[in-house]
Amino acid sequence: MASPTLISLDAMGGDHGPSVVVGGVKDYLSRHDGEGVRFLLHGDEAAIRAEMARCALTDAVCDVRHTDKVVAMDEKPAQAMRRGKGSSLWNAIEAVKTGEAAAAVSAGNTGALMAISKLLLRMAAPGLERPAIVASWPTTRGYTAVLDVGANIGSDAKQLIEFAIMGEAFQSAVHGVAKPTVGLLNVGSEDMKGHDEVREAHAILREGGIPLNYHGFVEGDDIAKGTVDVVVTDGFTGNIALKTAEGTARFISGLLKEALTSGPIAKLGALIAMPALKRMAARIDPNAINGGPLLGLNGIVVKSHGGATPRGYGNAIRIAVDLARSDYMAKVGANLGRLAALEQPAPAAETLGETHQ
Amino acid sequence: MASPTLISLDAMGGDHGPSVVVGGVKDYLSRHDGEGVRFLLHGDEAAIRAEMARCALTDAVCDVRHTDKVVAMDEKPAQAMRRGKGSSLWNAIEAVKTGEAAAAVSAGNTGALMAISKLLLRMAAPGLERPAIVASWPTTRGYTAVLDVGANIGSDAKQLIEFAIMGEAFQSAVHGVAKPTVGLLNVGSEDMKGHDEVREAHAILREGGIPLNYHGFVEGDDIAKGTVDVVVTDGFTGNIALKTAEGTARFISGLLKEALTSGPIAKLGALIAMPALKRMAARIDPNAINGGPLLGLNGIVVKSHGGATPRGYGNAIRIAVDLARSDYMAKVGANLGRLAALEQPAPAAETLGETHQ
Repeated sequence: MASPTLISLDAMGGDHGPSVVVGGVKDYLSRHDGEGVRFLLHGDEAAIRAEMARCALTDAVCDVRHTDKVVAMDEKPAQAMRRGKGSSLWNAIEAVKTGEAAAAVSAGNTGALMAISKLLLRMAAPGLERPAIVASWPTTRGYTAVLDVGANIGSDAKQLIEFAIMGEAFQSAVHGVAKPTVGLLNVGSEDMKGHDEVREAHAILREGGIPLNYHGFVEGDDIAKGTVDVVVTDGFTGNIALKTAEGTARFISGLLKEALTSGPIAKLGALIAMPALKRMAARIDPNAINGGPLLGLNGIVVKSHGGATPRGYGNAIRIAVDLARSDYMAKVGANLGRLAALEQPAPAAETLGETHQ
Repeated sequence: MASPTLISLDAMGGDHGPSVVVGGVKDYLSRHDGEGVRFLLHGDEAAIRAEMARCALTDAVCDVRHTDKVVAMDEKPAQAMRRGKGSSLWNAIEAVKTGEAAAAVSAGNTGALMAISKLLLRMAAPGLERPAIVASWPTTRGYTAVLDVGANIGSDAKQLIEFAIMGEAFQSAVHGVAKPTVGLLNVGSEDMKGHDEVREAHAILREGGIPLNYHGFVEGDDIAKGTVDVVVTDGFTGNIALKTAEGTARFISGLLKEALTSGPIAKLGALIAMPALKRMAARIDPNAINGGPLLGLNGIVVKSHGGATPRGYGNAIRIAVDLARSDYMAKVGANLGRLAALEQPAPAAETLGETHQ
């Protein structure tokens, strides 16, 4: 029998702590084949065991590691790095570092999680300052991976290509897309559009030195259309695009709610159409797509939303398991190696260049 | 009696030419008090007069200037500048340059309109390479002006402040907001968030040397919330945010349509709720917000969407009239002057600086 996949959980992170984390384990096991998956839960043992009892989970599935130290949701990253050692968040990541666990999940403080993950695991993608965050964006054709949505402001061409490599491997591992197509987010599709960084990344990706299924430039409205499987952009633009889309979705949902409660006749219509409207709402439910991996680290770390439900946390666990059991890390490593090789021209080529100058 | 406000129209621009342009004049006059507004229509006289007859518009309202030259919708900007002289688009802008018309509207080729407007009118905002485009974004509280949504890639702090000055004057002239609040689009609200350009613009706007009602940083989801009246960003981010929002709106509308036609019961509910749903759709109808002025020129030019309906074109005319009749140009001129003065420290201050160094 293959050794089990061990997932390390920060049981104290998030707005609701162990109730959602343990509830998330239960949700995961109810929806997926849990064969060969075990969990390491870091945090207050009594609180965790109480939730395990409520969810009828035993030590056969959950291994509890007590600590009473917790990183607060509002703690500054620098402070969390200095004082966080031994906390549930720290220990969850450390289990990945030592190789005991295959992946970690935390719904804790994002800044602290980034900082501690980077400190303990180190970056594997040398161009990145911080781990990149990928969003699974619902589209007419399924899910598109969009990255970076928040961590790296002002990305150069090398960073953008690192995002492309990691996003492609993520999409294939988590959403099961065999040869994901990759697009670079820009303001038009012609080669001369956009700023230097996107044009340079575009030129390198088109060359074909890195084996990606590169589509070319895409525009903002291509994201929801599902034109490509992976959309690559810098963290500034990606964060603004994601929050703008969330704001737009909330605005339209609000208008719809307002319209369907605007009078007795509208309410009657809404009541009759309710099952169909509920199925529609499920398509864009944030809990169905919860779980953003921090990409670019030497190890798998998945961030759950702090306010996620057990269903949402269960989905973050699924993403961690899928990444851990796939060839994600190997594929990213191989392609980052190809990128590094592209940057160091072979000695022969250099000599040739000198001769001609 | 005051002299009439003359609006110059490129009657051949757009996907439908004179039928939508003349139809737009009729729509405008049916919705607004046309007292003192007259139109100069540039293009094929016979085609224009046929549409005027259909719409029962006379020479008392429309002055026709014949030309059989037209800039094609797919003509490159450089080519349009070289060969566009005497075309309906060119003549529409030239009437603003000579002072005959107070503003111009065109649904023609955007790149050509930008290039010819810049060539004939010149930029009034010295930091801008190209005119900025402002979008009127529907929000829970009315309309927010967002700029630049497409023309200027990679804006420095000075450009961002020019956008703030022009957007504020636009919002006040067109949407009637007395003291519009202005926000800078960023990935967080703290002072140290974002790249150098937004942080520098933030510092200058906070200083208060330019009399704007500056709110501070806003995030992507603040746009649809209507947190501020004017959202300022570079043309790259603004274009992507706008198209992402359009794509999201289209995606959700598609899901809604799918849900409400998914079976006989859902269809019945939709039928009953239809009047309320139609009122909702009107809130986000692109034709109700059609018309993007090209800001930063020495003159008023409004771009209509190429595929706009007569209703949409009528709205673009309304924007041109409102800008022409307001203190927009004077206010922008005064504030651009203040910005220039901020950049050249007064001699006394310079001397003081030298003494202390």
